[in-house]
Amino acid sequence: MSGSESQALYGLVDLGGTKVVVGLARGGEILATRRFATDVPEGPDAGMRRMARETRDLQAELGLADLPLAAIGASIPGPNDLERGIVLSSHNVGWFDYPFVDRYSSELGGIPVFMDDDANCAGVGEARFGAGAGIPHQVYITVSTGIGGAVIIDGRIYRGWQGVGGEVGHVCVLPDGPICPCGNVGCAEAIASGPVIARRGAALLAQHQSAMLDGMAGGDPAAVTTALVFDAARAGDPACTRIVDDAARFLGILAAGLVQVLNPQAIVWGGGVMMAQSDLLLPRIEAEMGMHVYAVHRQGLLLKKAVHGDRSGLFGALALAMEGVGDA
Amino acid sequence: MSGSESQALYGLVDLGGTKVVVGLARGGEILATRRFATDVPEGPDAGMRRMARETRDLQAELGLADLPLAAIGASIPGPNDLERGIVLSSHNVGWFDYPFVDRYSSELGGIPVFMDDDANCAGVGEARFGAGAGIPHQVYITVSTGIGGAVIIDGRIYRGWQGVGGEVGHVCVLPDGPICPCGNVGCAEAIASGPVIARRGAALLAQHQSAMLDGMAGGDPAAVTTALVFDAARAGDPACTRIVDDAARFLGILAAGLVQVLNPQAIVWGGGVMMAQSDLLLPRIEAEMGMHVYAVHRQGLLLKKAVHGDRSGLFGALALAMEGVGDA
Repeated sequence: MSGSESQALYGLVDLGGTKVVVGLARGGEILATRRFATDVPEGPDAGMRRMARETRDLQAELGLADLPLAAIGASIPGPNDLERGIVLSSHNVGWFDYPFVDRYSSELGGIPVFMDDDANCAGVGEARFGAGAGIPHQVYITVSTGIGGAVIIDGRIYRGWQGVGGEVGHVCVLPDGPICPCGNVGCAEAIASGPVIARRGAALLAQHQSAMLDGMAGGDPAAVTTALVFDAARAGDPACTRIVDDAARFLGILAAGLVQVLNPQAIVWGGGVMMAQSDLLLPRIEAEMGMHVYAVHRQGLLLKKAVHGDRSGLFGALALAMEGVGDA
Repeated sequence: MSGSESQALYGLVDLGGTKVVVGLARGGEILATRRFATDVPEGPDAGMRRMARETRDLQAELGLADLPLAAIGASIPGPNDLERGIVLSSHNVGWFDYPFVDRYSSELGGIPVFMDDDANCAGVGEARFGAGAGIPHQVYITVSTGIGGAVIIDGRIYRGWQGVGGEVGHVCVLPDGPICPCGNVGCAEAIASGPVIARRGAALLAQHQSAMLDGMAGGDPAAVTTALVFDAARAGDPACTRIVDDAARFLGILAAGLVQVLNPQAIVWGGGVMMAQSDLLLPRIEAEMGMHVYAVHRQGLLLKKAVHGDRSGLFGALALAMEGVGDA
């Protein structure tokens, strides 16, 4: 990369169900970000214009108002039509069939806009600028409200035939397991996502199975959060430990299958639940993997925690924008 | 490819636990083959020399003794050190740490020899010359004495970081399932391989659970074969149908996971058990996959049966040899 390219200024977007983050980046660093609440009722056009406004304000704030943006990278919840730059149906955000790439580019006076699914962005962000830097073959798994991920082969996202590969959260890990909100049976997400862990915790209260969690939640099942279940497990509560064991177990089975098939050098774990609870989850995941992975595949396999936390997606958006304009 | 290259003559080897097949190929066609029993006690050097002798005889037989072989392609049971061309430990064949590529090349006067694991060869053979021809992203699954396969991305075997990827038979599909001979728990191979199906059938006799199978096997559990279990299921025996259902179910779960992650356009099914029993297996596999695969991943997904049967590996050896000398 030439010196001038490396100093190009990029705009970043991370669209989520509760908040939107925009940012500016240069030289592989995120200079500054702004976040604002996702306003679902106002609709996508208003949201998109707000992103543009906040980005311009941020430029002015940093004294970079006169420096043109080289490109925009955007992390958007799927499913998306990446080829045409259309957000197909982001229920949490309230965007449906919205031609984001074209609209946002127009709003910004024709700057090129590149978008990808949020889990892909987070995976690429860690692979390019984070825990997976310098590792050609890796898998990223995010454990959060949902479970998702990205398969990275030779340093690039592997998308498959129709571009819908990498659905690691919706691999069956328990044949007679629960029905997932996605409609499939026994998905990892149906067993090990944050909301499922919280729901299982809440059920303990109804059944008087955990005095500790009951006390922590003030006796209110609705007050049981994912974090509270982990806290109780960390404090030795047997029922909550069982919930954590289960989640880790099936994440381990998921990861093991990916390792057997893809033989990656690293699995990078991200997402809100993992970032907060890796001390409990990772050792259990590793133990479970030991029962399902060949020794040769395990040898040297790195299980890593994401380093950018909730900014992995922004770094991925940066990688996307840089790649989009050939600033590799 | 130039006309002269396409008419190059290739030697092929398919080494197995019970038989060795050598062949000659030209212009994408296998001209002739010879098979002989694998003589384990005689050792690898003698076996290798026999391959060379049979290949030369075959050349003479076809009137091609004067045409030099452009290269040899060899399908060898793993694990192998492909980089150094060494057969690490083929228990069935009785070869251990045997530098096959160097020895066979020397024996043939310096002709380049290219080898790959047998499941990879079968997968490549079908991808290049068989059921998967023209499909860039596909997965090959062989159901036979073992369960194995190959992941094909952009028309090439995906091997992963250390070259040991594609172990599809040893993905956990049943968390509390049987211990596999490989040492892992709940592998597809531990539930759906030919020998497991036969063993489950034999157990029915001991428990008097299938008068039909008992009759077919003359009351002798040792006479129960995989094929007999399928025959009884095909004739409506409930206990044998249950065994077939189970095998198909877990093959379906395995395939579904691969589809969710890799989004291939096709799954090509090969191997002795599948070639003989696909009428029972494939519809059940497809039904199970419906519970674990997104509609968008299923749309247009091709479930295909291998077209070359027990010659898939030879065709893969041909692809390997052609690729090895740049005759693409």
